Amino acid sequence: KKTFKIAAIPGDGIGNEVLPEGLRVVEAAARKWSLDLSFETIEWASCDYYLQHGKMMPDDWFEQLKGFDALYFGAVGWPDKVPDHISLWGSLLKFRRDFDQYVNIRPVRLFPGVPCPLAGREPGDIDFVVIRENTEGEYSSLGGRMFEGTEHEFVLQESVFTRRGVDRILKYAFDLAQTRERKQLTAATKSNGMAVSMPYWDERVAAMAEKYPEIKWDKQHIDILCARFVLQPDRFDVVVASNLFGDILSDLGPACAGTIGIAPSANLNPERNFPSLFEPVHGSAPDIYGRNIANPIAMIWSGALMLDFLGNGDERYKAAHDGILQAIERVIAEGPVTPDLGGKASTQDVGKAIADAL
Amino acid sequence: KKTFKIAAIPGDGIGNEVLPEGLRVVEAAARKWSLDLSFETIEWASCDYYLQHGKMMPDDWFEQLKGFDALYFGAVGWPDKVPDHISLWGSLLKFRRDFDQYVNIRPVRLFPGVPCPLAGREPGDIDFVVIRENTEGEYSSLGGRMFEGTEHEFVLQESVFTRRGVDRILKYAFDLAQTRERKQLTAATKSNGMAVSMPYWDERVAAMAEKYPEIKWDKQHIDILCARFVLQPDRFDVVVASNLFGDILSDLGPACAGTIGIAPSANLNPERNFPSLFEPVHGSAPDIYGRNIANPIAMIWSGALMLDFLGNGDERYKAAHDGILQAIERVIAEGPVTPDLGGKASTQDVGKAIADAL
Ligand SMILES: CC(C)[C@H](C(=O)O)[C@@H](O)C(=O)O
Ligand SMILES: CC(C)[C@H](C(=O)O)[C@@H](O)C(=O)O
Repeated sequence: KKTFKIAAIPGDGIGNEVLPEGLRVVEAAARKWSLDLSFETIEWASCDYYLQHGKMMPDDWFEQLKGFDALYFGAVGWPDKVPDHISLWGSLLKFRRDFDQYVNIRPVRLFPGVPCPLAGREPGDIDFVVIRENTEGEYSSLGGRMFEGTEHEFVLQESVFTRRGVDRILKYAFDLAQTRERKQLTAATKSNGMAVSMPYWDERVAAMAEKYPEIKWDKQHIDILCARFVLQPDRFDVVVASNLFGDILSDLGPACAGTIGIAPSANLNPERNFPSLFEPVHGSAPDIYGRNIANPIAMIWSGALMLDFLGNGDERYKAAHDGILQAIERVIAEGPVTPDLGGKASTQDVGKAIADAL
Repeated sequence: KKTFKIAAIPGDGIGNEVLPEGLRVVEAAARKWSLDLSFETIEWASCDYYLQHGKMMPDDWFEQLKGFDALYFGAVGWPDKVPDHISLWGSLLKFRRDFDQYVNIRPVRLFPGVPCPLAGREPGDIDFVVIRENTEGEYSSLGGRMFEGTEHEFVLQESVFTRRGVDRILKYAFDLAQTRERKQLTAATKSNGMAVSMPYWDERVAAMAEKYPEIKWDKQHIDILCARFVLQPDRFDVVVASNLFGDILSDLGPACAGTIGIAPSANLNPERNFPSLFEPVHGSAPDIYGRNIANPIAMIWSGALMLDFLGNGDERYKAAHDGILQAIERVIAEGPVTPDLGGKASTQDVGKAIADAL
């Protein structure tokens, strides 16, 4: 019987507030369903660590973490302390890339009881999943400056799309669409503007689609696709996107479903060669840190995704995932909820209520 | 007394349906306010032209067009005939770049009578303008493929940000914010992910902001910024963005304000060395072409922006701009309107009604 080793990494800002609530619920679930989990808290990977050590993580971070089965991650970033590109490329983006977590799964769902910013939308109208490529694409540190500091200064930045990188995320997304009732897939593109990378992406989408004759698929330019998330959210089932477009769609989608405070994500290395990472879609939100008003549900839901992935089909883990989701649904509908959902509860109140509802 | 020369370019799809209505209203305004305009229709710059000639435009397109004061442009693109990157880089994107139309102005406003997809929003809650960089950034055809056709295939695509290009659009946006009541500016960024280009953009924003101490400004990552367009559209005044981010925001914004069928844009060469271009934000929409249900208001409003720019302070042209806007407001409120606004009118019905309302 294997014990799953989980590294709990709070990071910055509200990461420190929501992670304990995630752990509270995951531990309660572990007791209830007899899951075999062990936890270790990682104190580095934060801007405060950077201010002390001049780097976000110790040099042997990879060695320290690679033996874990999962990283349960709060959020990183505090731009007044460390510029975002330094803090993120020094932590989260390193995890995603070096642990080859190439699939980023971001479910979007309107829950009963959540005030929806879209007029006239009911639970059931918004229920789709964004599958985001997570290791390449537009997220790149390749490039540089020329004629620096002069009037002629310019910057080049590379986007990188590999056949391996594109095909494996598309395959994941089409496979997923195949398991769903509607069997529908939308690929985000912008081949009319980004004239090198995106026509390639389109080609690979068309090639992959040929292997899935049952899937109804289309491609949509990112500009109109964003508009349709607002105007016709019911028309989406599986949305597959590059790193940047997936990032945008997975903040916009949850906003359309009421709040990014509940949106979870799973950064998967499906082959399980390296730890996968589970984190809320929201960031570290320095502006609200310290007030205990951050919604812990995104963190808690991410914990449920973690258990499901770790269990890899084991019934107890599946039951724990489903149980946490039901508890979340119930607490959203009956309260207590945090201010982003119209309530007055604290982060801890919500965490406790969900743990109790288990 | 100068006569302004306007090239009318329908392009593809519904460009052919909405442009005549735009011309109808602009011509009616010209009669009413004694404007000195002449028109010439350009039959190329379309996918059908491409199918006949193997290119989107004749080789001397630049010579043919450079003497015009404005291009009044429908829409280009018909992916079943010509791939989008070929049709767009062969026409619209060439105009923007070669005529140095580096400012793309895209107002977003919720009009009385427009059904708003955002719950509880009233006219007045959504009233901002997206200023989009229009000649460089992520829109680039620089890059290429390596190991083509093999498993090792990959694609590099460059984004290009020059100091000149970035600073001039920022200056335009800050200058504009300075003239507005709220004096507020938001710069879209993604410096946490795009680690070369966007930190540079952020630096230039901060440097420009120092020259405008009266402006309240902030920068927001594009993911959360898109979310806030849905959740808090009232908080925006001037939003300045790179080419790609401006493209996304200027479709999403109008969607939040009810329909992209009314969203206009002005592609300006502020120095007037070359013709500026005025076009709806929506595209050629092959799926609805031929049914005469396309909303002509985006085209008509773009015409108003054209007159305002051409007049360059001349009272008659300003009056024509304001008069067209009032006529649009009235027809939106009282009808007739097209199906995207919940009505049953045809493209032509709406065009006639707005011309009559003048
Ligand atoms: C058609 C396309 C190339 C264009 C763009 O992306 O600029 C359009 O979406 C727009 O917004 O004007
Ligand atoms: C913090 C940032 C680098 C990150 C991203 O852009 O991937 C975040 O926005 C996310 O969506 O996980």
